[in-house]
Amino acid sequence: MTIRPLSDRVLLKAEEAEETTKSGIVLAAKAVEKPQIASVIAVGPGGEVDGKEVKMYLKEGDRVIAAKYSGTEVKIDGEEYTIVRQSDILAVVE
Amino acid sequence: MTIRPLSDRVLLKAEEAEETTKSGIVLAAKAVEKPQIASVIAVGPGGEVDGKEVKMYLKEGDRVIAAKYSGTEVKIDGEEYTIVRQSDILAVVE
Amino acid sequence: MTIRPLSDRVLLKAEEAEETTKSGIVLAAKAVEKPQIASVIAVGPGGEVDGKEVKMYLKEGDRVIAAKYSGTEVKIDGEEYTIVRQSDILAVVE
Amino acid sequence: MTIRPLSDRVLLKAEEAEETTKSGIVLAAKAVEKPQIASVIAVGPGGEVDGKEVKMYLKEGDRVIAAKYSGTEVKIDGEEYTIVRQSDILAVVE
Amino acid sequence: MTIRPLSDRVLLKAEEAEETTKSGIVLAAKAVEKPQIASVIAVGPGGEVDGKEVKMYLKEGDRVIAAKYSGTEVKIDGEEYTIVRQSDILAVVE
Amino acid sequence: MTIRPLSDRVLLKAEEAEETTKSGIVLAAKAVEKPQIASVIAVGPGGEVDGKEVKMYLKEGDRVIAAKYSGTEVKIDGEEYTIVRQSDILAVVE
Amino acid sequence: MTIRPLSDRVLLKAEEAEETTKSGIVLAAKAVEKPQIASVIAVGPGGEVDGKEVKMYLKEGDRVIAAKYSGTEVKIDGEEYTIVRQSDILAVVE
Repeated sequence: MTIRPLSDRVLLKAEEAEETTKSGIVLAAKAVEKPQIASVIAVGPGGEVDGKEVKMYLKEGDRVIAAKYSGTEVKIDGEEYTIVRQSDILAVVE
Repeated sequence: MTIRPLSDRVLLKAEEAEETTKSGIVLAAKAVEKPQIASVIAVGPGGEVDGKEVKMYLKEGDRVIAAKYSGTEVKIDGEEYTIVRQSDILAVVE
Repeated sequence: MTIRPLSDRVLLKAEEAEETTKSGIVLAAKAVEKPQIASVIAVGPGGEVDGKEVKMYLKEGDRVIAAKYSGTEVKIDGEEYTIVRQSDILAVVE
Repeated sequence: MTIRPLSDRVLLKAEEAEETTKSGIVLAAKAVEKPQIASVIAVGPGGEVDGKEVKMYLKEGDRVIAAKYSGTEVKIDGEEYTIVRQSDILAVVE
Repeated sequence: MTIRPLSDRVLLKAEEAEETTKSGIVLAAKAVEKPQIASVIAVGPGGEVDGKEVKMYLKEGDRVIAAKYSGTEVKIDGEEYTIVRQSDILAVVE
Repeated sequence: MTIRPLSDRVLLKAEEAEETTKSGIVLAAKAVEKPQIASVIAVGPGGEVDGKEVKMYLKEGDRVIAAKYSGTEVKIDGEEYTIVRQSDILAVVE
Repeated sequence: MTIRPLSDRVLLKAEEAEETTKSGIVLAAKAVEKPQIASVIAVGPGGEVDGKEVKMYLKEGDRVIAAKYSGTEVKIDGEEYTIVRQSDILAVVE
């Protein structure tokens, strides 16, 4: 099954939690907070949103940080995704 | 009885719940959460909404994911439907 | 007494509750939820609403479904009505 | 003392409660709910409201139904009035 | 000290409470509710407010009724005033 | 350290509380409410705010009354200031 | 890892708390409130936000005061940042 986001929406998948502390110790997923970085899986076509033209500047594969509590969680084929508006994405991580 | 959605609204019917886990086991409806996928039964004519022209890009038969808590539940002839604005539909599933 | 809705408002009267189950059994009014279908009794003239021109597409006699909790309940001459904005009407039933 | 409503406001006075049931029995004021019909006592000049030109279509002597909880109650010379925006008036009763 | 209201604001001073009942009895201030009539002490210059040009139609000395709970109470030199937007003034009393 | 307000913001410092009653008695700071008058310490450059051009009409040294609860309290070098939008300033005191 | 803020957003890092009282005594971090000054680490490209063109006037290295409770806290590589809209930044400190 393929999920095609509509309008100015973006389909995200949270990265597996694996955090390295400054001193280099890798913590197991259980020990750390939910990671805030997600991968862009699919990007909507943009277009008119609330009477304003929206251009999509994100692309598949971008690693991003989304605003907390934004978007809708979706479970398809047992996988969990989040669908957010592009404007709810705060930053790109490189 | 036929339900004709007005303006930018879309009539949805939730798909029967039947979820296959990743390992291929089919769970009975009772054991799974309410499915998030719905079928588009009818599409309103679009037109001016809050002073902005809205074009309908969804069509009958599309399988979609709607934002949680959006829309109004309607029971007609014993069948349950949801009527949402097209802008509350997050994604199309193919 | 005649009630003439103003602006983009519509005067509705809820249909008497009488619901037939799929198997054809007619339930008495007490046994069913409040019906969601109402008849349009009168339609306002439309015109400028919040600086936008509104055209009325509903007409007397239409059977409609209104958004829950929308509008104002009115009791005139012992009869109960609801006055809603046309934009709070979700669908026409035929 | 004369009250001159400003802008798009309308001065209303609730009608004395006297309700006739369908069967023709007149109920004393105490036994019935607060009536929803009010008389228009004075009408503001209209004009620009929030950057939009408002024309007044109500006139002194109209009998109207106002949205519940709209407006401000005012007591002048021992008489009670309500001042509402014209857009809070739902219907005219004739 | 002189208070000069800015923008579309108006400086009000509540009238001393002295209310005459219909039958002509004058009630002492303590026995009546806070009066709703205030005098306009000073009027701001108007001008652009939220991107819209506002003209001031009130003038010093007008007796007005302001919307309840509108504005800010101010105490200067031991005197109490209220500063409200002109749009929060419902009516002029003459 | 110098604080330069941005956009349409104004840096205020509350005046020391010293209130003279009508009869001329000076009350100590503890005995009176927080004074509502503040001095303008610095004024932002104005410019486009929410898509609208804002001109600053306040200047350093003005004594003003700001709306209650508006703005953000800031402590720099042990001194307390408030930063508010110019539109939250109700009046100038002269 | 590099964090690139999107749109009109700015990446901030709170300054280490070290506050000198007026009398010159340096307080340890524990004894003082969370400092309100932050450094600008990175600035988004600006552009169209809600249909309005936003120009970025902040630059890397600026020391700023942001509105309380604005923005989203982000933890990347064990470091804590805040991402805010440029319009939530109240003042520059020099």
